[in-house]
Amino acid sequence: MSILDEIISLTKRRGFIFPTSEIYGGIAGFYDLGPTGVLLAKNIKDAWWNEMVQKRDNVVGLDSSIILNPKTWEASGHVTAFNDPLVECKLCHERLRVDQEDEIAQHVQKHASHGETNILWTEPRQFNLLFKTYVGPVEDSKSLAYLRGETCQGIYCNFANVLSSTRVKIPFGIAQIGKAFRNEVTPGKFLFRLREFELMELEYFVHPKDGDTTFAYWKEERLKWHISLGLSKDKLRLRQHETAERAHYAADSWDIEYDFPDWGYKELEGIANRTDYDLKTHGKWSGKDLSVVDSQTNESYIPYVIEPSVGVSRLMLALFIDGYVKEEKRTVLKLKPALAPYRVAVFPLLSNKPDLTSKAQLIYRDVKKTYSTAWDDRGNIGKRYLAQDEIGTPWCVTIDFTTLEDDTVTIRNRDTMKQDRISISKLSEYIERNI
Amino acid sequence: MSILDEIISLTKRRGFIFPTSEIYGGIAGFYDLGPTGVLLAKNIKDAWWNEMVQKRDNVVGLDSSIILNPKTWEASGHVTAFNDPLVECKLCHERLRVDQEDEIAQHVQKHASHGETNILWTEPRQFNLLFKTYVGPVEDSKSLAYLRGETCQGIYCNFANVLSSTRVKIPFGIAQIGKAFRNEVTPGKFLFRLREFELMELEYFVHPKDGDTTFAYWKEERLKWHISLGLSKDKLRLRQHETAERAHYAADSWDIEYDFPDWGYKELEGIANRTDYDLKTHGKWSGKDLSVVDSQTNESYIPYVIEPSVGVSRLMLALFIDGYVKEEKRTVLKLKPALAPYRVAVFPLLSNKPDLTSKAQLIYRDVKKTYSTAWDDRGNIGKRYLAQDEIGTPWCVTIDFTTLEDDTVTIRNRDTMKQDRISISKLSEYIERNI
Repeated sequence: MSILDEIISLTKRRGFIFPTSEIYGGIAGFYDLGPTGVLLAKNIKDAWWNEMVQKRDNVVGLDSSIILNPKTWEASGHVTAFNDPLVECKLCHERLRVDQEDEIAQHVQKHASHGETNILWTEPRQFNLLFKTYVGPVEDSKSLAYLRGETCQGIYCNFANVLSSTRVKIPFGIAQIGKAFRNEVTPGKFLFRLREFELMELEYFVHPKDGDTTFAYWKEERLKWHISLGLSKDKLRLRQHETAERAHYAADSWDIEYDFPDWGYKELEGIANRTDYDLKTHGKWSGKDLSVVDSQTNESYIPYVIEPSVGVSRLMLALFIDGYVKEEKRTVLKLKPALAPYRVAVFPLLSNKPDLTSKAQLIYRDVKKTYSTAWDDRGNIGKRYLAQDEIGTPWCVTIDFTTLEDDTVTIRNRDTMKQDRISISKLSEYIERNI
Repeated sequence: MSILDEIISLTKRRGFIFPTSEIYGGIAGFYDLGPTGVLLAKNIKDAWWNEMVQKRDNVVGLDSSIILNPKTWEASGHVTAFNDPLVECKLCHERLRVDQEDEIAQHVQKHASHGETNILWTEPRQFNLLFKTYVGPVEDSKSLAYLRGETCQGIYCNFANVLSSTRVKIPFGIAQIGKAFRNEVTPGKFLFRLREFELMELEYFVHPKDGDTTFAYWKEERLKWHISLGLSKDKLRLRQHETAERAHYAADSWDIEYDFPDWGYKELEGIANRTDYDLKTHGKWSGKDLSVVDSQTNESYIPYVIEPSVGVSRLMLALFIDGYVKEEKRTVLKLKPALAPYRVAVFPLLSNKPDLTSKAQLIYRDVKKTYSTAWDDRGNIGKRYLAQDEIGTPWCVTIDFTTLEDDTVTIRNRDTMKQDRISISKLSEYIERNI
């Protein structure tokens, strides 16, 4: 079993990730977050929001619709240019992306293993990645609409609204967390390339002359953030896009890449200097003035926008991979305590002793007021440790017979498996100190 | 201007709600959350999550996809039965819902005002409310999929996964917050009936014999919760559905209704006893066993599910209406402090005195560590109070020349407009005491 297969198995077994509508055979490119996955995702999103909005004075939040007025996507160029080049295998009629060499090679190999070596491909065609739908009771070209392929367009559309309703002034940012959809031809690699995924995007507006320095600032800030989440520093790198891979409107584009097993370095987060392209284009198409005026110099200009953009599920995949440690007798998910679904688990040593379970329940209820806390009274204590190690719970607290005498508990560290005996009243202090 | 129009204006002016892609003329049935709207929505969702998941021991969270395997919607009956009866006006070809008498009456009136009194309607046709799309590179019946019309189906599909990956046992709940989509024929009334909206749903699974008592429990719990958000108790009521309005699978259905201006009592939250219909149907269609076994009695059964379900934006609308107070010289949004976008606003008395602004910045930064905090140094102090009153900020702290001498500030109460002079070090204590 590959590491990835092991992780897929663990994350399903422990309630992080389930294939969407699995009882009906699933649907390619879609995954659901289970009970522990929701908690992990919430911690990741809160960490991003805290870093990008709360701790800053000049970034505000926004939450725009998934379905926008379709003119937005015509103006942005997505309707005509958000394409992947597609070829169809003439043997089995499967369609694949020309630019994904791995998939093409795998496909050739699949046929070769059946003795079919003479594969013919159709000429590449452009395939649009926007999911289409119809809004209203009539299905025609007037009601055609799209599911957003990126969240930032909803930000550009609201640029003037944000300026007039808040006290922000250039430089400032608008941040958004929300779902985006791309009708990928070949979704896959578990959470790596999904058709429905959650993006965390910041659009940071600056004077054009400050574009380069601001870009450099965000590159460093964002790399630091990924390291702060606990990802291995030596598996992260910044890579500048070649001119050819860069979107035509971008002046500069870098990826923060993570060294995935098997696939090597792949994009975790993209940082782009989108220049004044987006606001200029929306200004033209809508006929609205999206320029700003400098109150000091009276200069009127369209700001540049610097965009750091990262997907929740891809980041989650990197965290699973990075934290996954197989030891001789156990598997551990070494998530940073601040991200782990549960900060603490509380057990009674034995579940059939009412004295122990009622005492443990009291402690559980108390700890729960401060921390996300798991309770487990099934099976034996060893099994419970195994389960919490796989969920990534940093501390397990066990209530035993000594607890009933002197109000002390054992607290076990996930990574070292070392157990300390401490007073119940010192629990919070102990956790805060060891975080 | 009606109250609703005034609220639409206020919420736009103060950054709560913007029409989606307004620069392109908007799109009917869609709204975006602006900077203050995002904060209010986050507080509402956190309050729900805390009440329904965190404080309970037997409710877990889930976050399923918006696009599911389409068999889910065939099994659930949505593909064939999630319909509204539609008529078309033969004069102008507008389509309207037969069951929305207000809209029909308005339409008749609109024509009458042009002297057209002889309106003819087509026979009612059934119109399906699921938004359709195609997944993958070929658009045909095999790739047809739907945007979810309710979040609970993703919960039913994961019922067995949750059971096997967590330690929940009947009775237990699965909670989800997420977007849902309904292709409403006549969206409208601002945030009341949207085509894209966020639902907060709990599916609470119980033994069939406990269906009625559990249903009664959730009815009371949910009504209490809405009151706890600060909604006027005398504008809320519980109303049982008539047999005819009830979904065919529901054994009992009640709405928590809010007394909206103009429209009267309308649904805020629905609570349904969905019986074993959903799990039974998905069990049949998928061929998977979705029954549970009672470990004591060995009885095997399909649980009943009790569902309290409420929309974020409709609740937000009720909060806007309920909190909206027009006084002679100001308009106030009396949101409960725990829900208000900002708990505190910090101002320097004058913005052109560096001593004041730098002191105010220090205090702002300190308060911000604990509370969501606004900063404003524009215009005069009166204007800033007016702005914060409309945003619903419970306390405004002003740094003046006395502050520089004795480290005291004035703190102004939004509702009473009373100002106290207190020591900076007592700020948190003051706020906590007055909450």
